[in-house]
Amino acid sequence: MSDNPVIRALMSHRSIRKFTARVPTKKTIETIVRAGQQAAFGYQSASVLLSRDRQHNFFHAPLVFTFCVDLHRAERIAKRRRWKVASCDLHLLTFGIMDVTLMAQNMAVAAEGLGLGTCYIGSAMLRAAAIAREYHLPRRVLPVVHLAVGYPAEDPPVRPRYPLEFSLFEGRYPKLTDAQVRRAMETMDRGYLAQDYYRNANFMIPLRRGRNETYDFSTYSWTEHICRKLGQWWTSPDDLLTTLEQRGFSVTGRAMRGRGPNRARTARR
Amino acid sequence: MSDNPVIRALMSHRSIRKFTARVPTKKTIETIVRAGQQAAFGYQSASVLLSRDRQHNFFHAPLVFTFCVDLHRAERIAKRRRWKVASCDLHLLTFGIMDVTLMAQNMAVAAEGLGLGTCYIGSAMLRAAAIAREYHLPRRVLPVVHLAVGYPAEDPPVRPRYPLEFSLFEGRYPKLTDAQVRRAMETMDRGYLAQDYYRNANFMIPLRRGRNETYDFSTYSWTEHICRKLGQWWTSPDDLLTTLEQRGFSVTGRAMRGRGPNRARTARR
Repeated sequence: MSDNPVIRALMSHRSIRKFTARVPTKKTIETIVRAGQQAAFGYQSASVLLSRDRQHNFFHAPLVFTFCVDLHRAERIAKRRRWKVASCDLHLLTFGIMDVTLMAQNMAVAAEGLGLGTCYIGSAMLRAAAIAREYHLPRRVLPVVHLAVGYPAEDPPVRPRYPLEFSLFEGRYPKLTDAQVRRAMETMDRGYLAQDYYRNANFMIPLRRGRNETYDFSTYSWTEHICRKLGQWWTSPDDLLTTLEQRGFSVTGRAMRGRGPNRARTARR
Repeated sequence: MSDNPVIRALMSHRSIRKFTARVPTKKTIETIVRAGQQAAFGYQSASVLLSRDRQHNFFHAPLVFTFCVDLHRAERIAKRRRWKVASCDLHLLTFGIMDVTLMAQNMAVAAEGLGLGTCYIGSAMLRAAAIAREYHLPRRVLPVVHLAVGYPAEDPPVRPRYPLEFSLFEGRYPKLTDAQVRRAMETMDRGYLAQDYYRNANFMIPLRRGRNETYDFSTYSWTEHICRKLGQWWTSPDDLLTTLEQRGFSVTGRAMRGRGPNRARTARR
């Protein structure tokens, strides 16, 4: 592999869930957020909430950023320009989630480049109603993901990833052989087991519907973990659809429903 | 701001749309993709297609990566473990788009850290059917975004972003004043006008429905551009919903519909 400080920073990422008491300075925070803003964007829809309330933050991190798809700002701008946002919410959300993630990942990389540790928390969209109350979010602002940031008080190893042959496909998507699938599974499972990842975390996803547990920390690893997640969690979209509606988004609704036609546009701002 | 090679790389991002004939080496490509893989993930759902077909690539870039939300691999793994993926597609897609974007942005940062230039192309999801044919994608693999990569043959300036006061909100989302909205608009519009961005690109989004054009390249800037996009484009979700269905995803459908119950699980792999 090629090597330089940027590549080293990217390759040494691992989630950090224990933080020292050291408080990042205003300058550090602003550097991280500015670096986040400089990511590419679709329509600059990401806005960032910051909590320094260490007592209540995930992992008692000194900083927790919450990234939102923010249509409120776009609609304020559109109003000043005598436009209305007419794009349907499915497009706005898919592009918006990309905007949010581009910014969040630049911030994670910036933070790690400055010696801090980070951990994503993916539950924000599911908890959107509570977050909206907490931060007084206007309608059309949807929390998507959190990032906990602080100086590391632990030094875990870098975690395994799928083999390159299972992730990068040139020219065409191959017919993945059973041997390739097995190798990818072994890479992940042996890697996590060698690091005692789930034993150290003291966590296995419980089996539902009375299934008998046949695993322990000497056998439970990443592919079993992800199968239990994708095999048991979030089986209905209803809660998320309701949450989206509460925040003012409808993934199947046509744009403009109940909002009237786009105003005729003759004057310049 | 704090400074180091990582921060400099992030802060110097700008999209590159002209590339030299220099071809990135296999080592460079693998470094970029490995750095992408090392990003945080929800369920490692991102897979990457690579085209080196310069004649057909966007901007004739030597490399175009196409990032996909890939449930095919997860389902192959689940099958080997006697599980079925039961999570609903809305959750799989929202987490999947995050996985994809985390990986893509790490790859963009890695590429730029190695002296290459990048440009995102956001249309992949809309063109999913054509991309699926081209790359022989199995069902449940959804192209989301492209990234063109190569050595820069242009040196454009870094583009403006919203002021920090319009993007970072500590403790609560503020009632944005008209003055704040105006300042954010001016920052963007004056910034793009000072760089003659749209004149150099020779592009203004045409007005629909017989509206009269009142702008030229001395007045047309970012907020007008984004308003024309969000005010006129993608007004219906129907095409995207159809495309998603064709790729095997239903954002409102319950998981397991027509797929039978999750198999009883007694044996260990």
